[in-house]
Amino acid sequence: MNWNYSQPVKIIFGNNKIEELHDIFNSLGLKKGILICDPIFKSNGLMDKILDFSAGLLVETFYDITPNPTVDSVDSCAAIMREKNIEFAVALGGGSSLDCAKAACSVCKTPYSIADFHSGSKRLGSEHIPLIAIPTTSGTGSEVTPVAVLSNPHSGVKAPLVSDNFFPSHAIIDPALTLTVPAQVTASTGMDVLSHALEAFWSLNHQPICDALALHAAKLVFKYLPIAYADGSNLEAREKMSEASLIAGLAFGLPKTAGSHACSFPLTNLYHIPHGEACAFTLDAFTKINAEAEDGRLHEFARAAGFENAYKMADTISEMKKAMKLKITLKDAGIPEDNLEELSRLSQHPNMLNNPVKMNVESILKMYESLI
Amino acid sequence: MNWNYSQPVKIIFGNNKIEELHDIFNSLGLKKGILICDPIFKSNGLMDKILDFSAGLLVETFYDITPNPTVDSVDSCAAIMREKNIEFAVALGGGSSLDCAKAACSVCKTPYSIADFHSGSKRLGSEHIPLIAIPTTSGTGSEVTPVAVLSNPHSGVKAPLVSDNFFPSHAIIDPALTLTVPAQVTASTGMDVLSHALEAFWSLNHQPICDALALHAAKLVFKYLPIAYADGSNLEAREKMSEASLIAGLAFGLPKTAGSHACSFPLTNLYHIPHGEACAFTLDAFTKINAEAEDGRLHEFARAAGFENAYKMADTISEMKKAMKLKITLKDAGIPEDNLEELSRLSQHPNMLNNPVKMNVESILKMYESLI
Repeated sequence: MNWNYSQPVKIIFGNNKIEELHDIFNSLGLKKGILICDPIFKSNGLMDKILDFSAGLLVETFYDITPNPTVDSVDSCAAIMREKNIEFAVALGGGSSLDCAKAACSVCKTPYSIADFHSGSKRLGSEHIPLIAIPTTSGTGSEVTPVAVLSNPHSGVKAPLVSDNFFPSHAIIDPALTLTVPAQVTASTGMDVLSHALEAFWSLNHQPICDALALHAAKLVFKYLPIAYADGSNLEAREKMSEASLIAGLAFGLPKTAGSHACSFPLTNLYHIPHGEACAFTLDAFTKINAEAEDGRLHEFARAAGFENAYKMADTISEMKKAMKLKITLKDAGIPEDNLEELSRLSQHPNMLNNPVKMNVESILKMYESLI
Repeated sequence: MNWNYSQPVKIIFGNNKIEELHDIFNSLGLKKGILICDPIFKSNGLMDKILDFSAGLLVETFYDITPNPTVDSVDSCAAIMREKNIEFAVALGGGSSLDCAKAACSVCKTPYSIADFHSGSKRLGSEHIPLIAIPTTSGTGSEVTPVAVLSNPHSGVKAPLVSDNFFPSHAIIDPALTLTVPAQVTASTGMDVLSHALEAFWSLNHQPICDALALHAAKLVFKYLPIAYADGSNLEAREKMSEASLIAGLAFGLPKTAGSHACSFPLTNLYHIPHGEACAFTLDAFTKINAEAEDGRLHEFARAAGFENAYKMADTISEMKKAMKLKITLKDAGIPEDNLEELSRLSQHPNMLNNPVKMNVESILKMYESLI
């Protein structure tokens, strides 16, 4: 078996690590930065806290970011970086801020719009300013991946842009930041973590290092997500979910995700199901579909995670979804049966090609039809 | 819990990967290299094979390396690098060639002897030429660590030198290279891998990513080392042991090793027990000693590795040693009981401080006395 592995992001993990930002920036020789964050952190005071902890090393802020970050946001952020000769960026938030920041850190070193690179008409060189990513949810794993998902409202295209430049130089994981995440967001983002772990493992591009990390992350989610959901103030559970999110991010970075993520995109775009919940919507079904693939290696994973086999693991995923009030049936999700053919067609996203059981429109349809 | 992680080495894994060396060097923009290897590969033809596969990109060779590489070897190698304006190095072999190459790749960029840095009288800057490491045994994990153990025959000092420069830029793991390793070397180096995995896990510096990798590596050793020992031509077993060695190297890189490695140094220096066998000599004893440490987390590891508890895992280690004809008792190892106090004193190597159960001369002596 042939495989490659590299993971350039340096990780700093610990509760209240944000209080050490000034020392961390100093030790890295970083002097003149911009803080890029979701607008919520402007209003709830976290942005100001981060500025205080940076003690003068973050000289600008940018928070004009929508949930699906646009090429216009990236260009506005890059314009500030150019104008003020910004030397590094800090991204605080969920996937949106991180993705906007990743793109801005590269495009600021060019005279162009990110739209030129997003459309494929230009290619990014290697020049960029360093990015320090501070996730505020346990979900995306974006702090350790080279992917930025951007939308272009002018062309109507929403697509990922990938570049080695986009790897943050450092990820600072401060679990205490997740203590205030609402229960339903905890549930959805937590199931995103489980999807990353399981799909990384069963992806046709799986490889040993990522397999080991996927197993570690999945075990943590099965044990600690129900606790973090039931009691958001449980710091141990939050810490373990932060660990799981980071490690699942490392796990899927190279193998990529597969069937459940492929299905999640139309589920989110057409039916507005939050990303993690949309992944979870088919995760138990794909666990059963993939159970016997590649000599049943998923059974081995399930046993190592403490289950009798992959089918029992799928049952536990179903029970977790139910206990956390996530959508389970087509009816829950507001999907008319008449729309299933369109949904199945749109679920043939490239990630579906990573699924170990080959899926086509018919088998995807059959899977959706079972969700009644 | 606070922890950091970074791992800069890019990994390329696959049987017969050495046949792709020319393409790999080309894709990395590497043009004028030196091949550094154990003298055995000069005589058995592997050196010439590597030169052939590099198709002109390796313009020099260096193979004047002893099992404990000396500062003189490093200086001779660095002199060639300077004189010929060498741009990158390839190290082929066990720990000795890799350690010599790591040091030479940095010191060649200075006008000094490596002895000045080894003695601590000078400090290395960050300048160095890139190193591509190709291990030929499944053991040291040196291809992913920043450590070079060097001996200075003039001062009598044998000590590790550590620098971020020493991380190879790439590790190429070609399991087919290990097919010809003799059974007793397979046994000893394989038990080194198991020691790395277990000690990384129970080291006081343990951390989650390394824990996950340690478990993965240990499971592979328990399953595949007996097979690789019994039938060296079994490619699957060799491949899995290569994977285990690499991943155990990633696992112990940051947490470092603990009691068994601390004891191994005097066992090798005084009684000439090969390194891995010397680690294995106390590995089962330390598994029992550490079983209940830190709320019994080693029991959890043992269960995840398929054992009833840590004591049963220790029994399996003892059985593996016996089955592979490794030294088990003081008598086997030729250690007179009168020497145990000296041995215990010398076993107080700094790595012993990483052991989760605090050890002193008396408790180390008691441990040795049990090995009758």
